[in-house]
Parts: sequence; C-alpha cells; structure tokens
Amino acid sequence: MLSVQAEKGSQSSPSYRVRLDARSGKLTTSTANLAPGHVQANLAILPRALAADFLLFCQRNPKPCPLLAMSDPGDPSLAALGHDIDIRSDIPRYRVWREGVLADEPTDVKSVWRDDLVSFLIGCSFSFEEAMLDNGLPVRHIEQGCNVPMYRTAVATQAAGVFSGPLVVSMRPMKAAEAIRAIQVTSRFPSVHGAPVHFGDPALIGIADIGRPDYGDPVEIRAGEVPVFWACGVTPQSVVAAIKPEFCITHAPGHMLVTDLLNSKLASF
Amino acid sequence: MLSVQAEKGSQSSPSYRVRLDARSGKLTTSTANLAPGHVQANLAILPRALAADFLLFCQRNPKPCPLLAMSDPGDPSLAALGHDIDIRSDIPRYRVWREGVLADEPTDVKSVWRDDLVSFLIGCSFSFEEAMLDNGLPVRHIEQGCNVPMYRTAVATQAAGVFSGPLVVSMRPMKAAEAIRAIQVTSRFPSVHGAPVHFGDPALIGIADIGRPDYGDPVEIRAGEVPVFWACGVTPQSVVAAIKPEFCITHAPGHMLVTDLLNSKLASF
Repeated sequence: MLSVQAEKGSQSSPSYRVRLDARSGKLTTSTANLAPGHVQANLAILPRALAADFLLFCQRNPKPCPLLAMSDPGDPSLAALGHDIDIRSDIPRYRVWREGVLADEPTDVKSVWRDDLVSFLIGCSFSFEEAMLDNGLPVRHIEQGCNVPMYRTAVATQAAGVFSGPLVVSMRPMKAAEAIRAIQVTSRFPSVHGAPVHFGDPALIGIADIGRPDYGDPVEIRAGEVPVFWACGVTPQSVVAAIKPEFCITHAPGHMLVTDLLNSKLASF
Repeated sequence: MLSVQAEKGSQSSPSYRVRLDARSGKLTTSTANLAPGHVQANLAILPRALAADFLLFCQRNPKPCPLLAMSDPGDPSLAALGHDIDIRSDIPRYRVWREGVLADEPTDVKSVWRDDLVSFLIGCSFSFEEAMLDNGLPVRHIEQGCNVPMYRTAVATQAAGVFSGPLVVSMRPMKAAEAIRAIQVTSRFPSVHGAPVHFGDPALIGIADIGRPDYGDPVEIRAGEVPVFWACGVTPQSVVAAIKPEFCITHAPGHMLVTDLLNSKLASF
C-alpha cells in the first residue's frame, strides 16, 4: 500500500468538493476530468470473510491491482486517501451485487452498509493518462471521446484463496517512439498500474480480435502504430464477479473515488 | 559531458591494467569483457579545425553521440576518464585515416600525433548490455558470439557545420515484455545511448532488410520477438568518414578505451 499520505484537505480543495457533491447527490455522473491532478481510485467493498484472500490477491498481482488503501472492517473512512472521506456516500454512483448479480446502482450505500464490510481502493489509469498527456503522448480513447478498450487475456493472474482468473488489459495505440516514451512515463507510476505488460501482436497474449474489446470501446489503430497494453483495474472486478460473493459493492464504471492524493506525488522518481 | 569523475586509479585497478597492457603492446585484441563493470568508450580524434563542429554535432545528437569526455588540443591525457591515460597508446588498436581512406591500423599513434589533435570519447553499448545481462535480458549477439547488427536508417541526424548524415542503429531482438524491461533498464543510462529509438517494423525507420545489417553480423529473431533499435556509436564514425577529413584517428572496432568510470555510476536513478 502507498506510503504517501493525503494532503490535509479543506472544504476548498477540489477533490474534497467533488466528494461533497457526490455525498449530497449533486454529482451523479462520471468523475473523468474532475479535480485534475488528483488521484482517482477504483472501489471494491467485500465482506470481511473474503478480505484476507482479496488482500493477498492484490499483493500477488500489483500491476492489475495496485492497492492504494484498505479500510478497517465496517469503517467507512479512509484517512490515507483524503480528508473526511465517507466511502458510503462520496462516490457518485455505486453498483451493489448480490450472489454475483447486479442488484442496484444507487448514489449512496448507507442503507446497505454492514459492520463487516472492508473497502479496497485500487489505482486507476486516469493518473498515468494525465502524465501521458502532459508528455504530449496520444491517448486515443480520449481523442475519440469514448471508453478505453479492455481485453481479457490468456495470461493468468496469481491465484489467492478463492480469487483467480485472467489478466484484463487496457490498450492505447501509438507509434513505437511514443510507446518508448510512454513506457518511461508510466514506469514512474507503479501504484497506478506502472509500465505496460505487452505491446505489438495481440495474439501473443491471447487477444483474438483487437477490434472487439471485451469491455469499453474499440479505438482506431493508425498506420505505423502498435497497440500497447497495460494491466487494468477491471481485473480485480472481473475476478470478484467470477466468484459471485453473497454481497459486494463496486463503483459504477467511470464513477471513481476522487482522493486528496496528487498524481505528481505518486511518481517514483 | 559527464559530471562523473573517474575514481582515483591505481596500478592495481583492472581498467588501468588493461590500459597499461595496451600501452606496452601486450594487448592488441578486442576489449570486450575486459575489466567488467568499467565504462568503455569509442574514440574519434580530429584536427582542431573540425573539433568545434564535431562537438556541436555531439551536443545536438546525444543519443548516438553521448560524449563522455573531450581533450584539450594536443593533450593526450583524459583525467576525467581515468588515471594516467595516454590516448596515443592506451587503446589496443587504432585506425588512422587520411582523406577518408584507411591508411594504417597501428597499436599506438605516437608517431603520427600532432599538437592540434582533439580526442572525443563517446559512450558505448557495452555499458548498457552489462545492465541488460544483469537483468536477465537476452543479448542475442553475445549469445551467438558475433558482432551486434547495425543499420543505416532513413532518420537524419541534426547537422552541425560540416557534419551530417543518417542515424545508425544497433538491434537486439527480444519479446515485448523483455523489451519493456530493456527500455526501463537502458533509460537509466543516458550517457551510453539511453532508451531505444524504435522497435518493431524496421521499414518505418528505413531499414529494407533486417537480415542484412550494414555493419556487424545478422542475428536470429525468434518467433514472438520484435527487433529493438538503439542509437549507435557508429553514427559519429560514419558521419566523420563521410566528410573525408585530411586526418583522423579512431579506435579499431571493438578495441575501446577502458576507463576508470564504473557503469553502475552512470545510472541516472
């Protein structure tokens, strides 16, 4: 987990204002581009009985599951990630799963909260995409105004207890020289997926049709470009979904926890 | 140029012993694998009249021409690179060029030395190959016991005065995941060519036939591997050769200056 501590927040910090807007119900849409510079995080909330296995799964698979913070059972605060966080209300939209089936998409989860629930906050590619854009690198799905294409691969994650399954990757196409720079840039951010896991021939990692992603939207790959693949935060979600836990809460896609951490402070060198 | 200063050498340091063996005529062969851990350098010696242009050329093209040190005119010492260096004798074999034609391959150049000669010492891929091997990465030409394959590209260097010409690259094939690690590893060594400049389709940088290098030997590219291309220290040599200077001295290929600098100290982070 991160050793970076959140800045002392205040009502005027942009990240806290996003969370307060989510808490009050004023914000119910995607957090993309909100509070620029701040780390956004994926959420998985699991019953305590599954938490130890899931923590071990994250520990064994740090590239798809870079764990930013984990709560104590029943505790909705996450002091390491920001001021006055209430994980039950501070995300704009949640997904509640029962026995692996999507049961509800509420804007807060106070009514279904339990004392045995443990929150896992996992790094998100928004952080490294900001660094890529700052370096003049193309992020095609942002250019095209769609979701990043994501693919289930033939690469197995390291199993832990009940959790196992294939690595899911996100793909961003670019020229080779841009990919070399993107590898340098994203290597600086190990807590938000870090360097790519593959580039080039999709078949080598078991992707049959690059034009048909398993999640998200297809994007254009132009002449002279190669697809570059990063480990994706959808991996833990798909692994959790596969075991159909009796109860589970995640964020709705694109509706992240906006933390007080700064992307710039995640950089490892 | 490097801010790293050479360690205070002694007669017992392995790098100094290599230089003394070259000086005495005992060593006349390649310096590959001698004094492991020490930086080896390419040599170009030019008349003072060309030195300012060549320095500017190196400054403008740091990836193919990472300048480790430059001497004062007529001065055969290079204190920044090692103890008691005499550049006229401390390399096992030289090439002497007159009007662009190879005139001699002597083991020292004291008899042709002039007071207007300026020495340029340029970083060499031996340094980053050592780091690659330390990281368990494949270096195919070492495995195959041959010279690294090098190619003239369609990529122009930045011209400076009389010096201009195409970028020359060296190629090492590997799997994508290995290439990602190799990009991380070699990025740490900007003073010895640094990160690759290209990977994948050779035609995109004007290489017509990967099986027929312009210098060195072809190497096997296995299924699932991509060619990875680094800027090469042959670039300055080919650029110098192209203008056919009235007088010029270089090292004979593979017969480098072994310096007192440590590869590990070149690492930028």
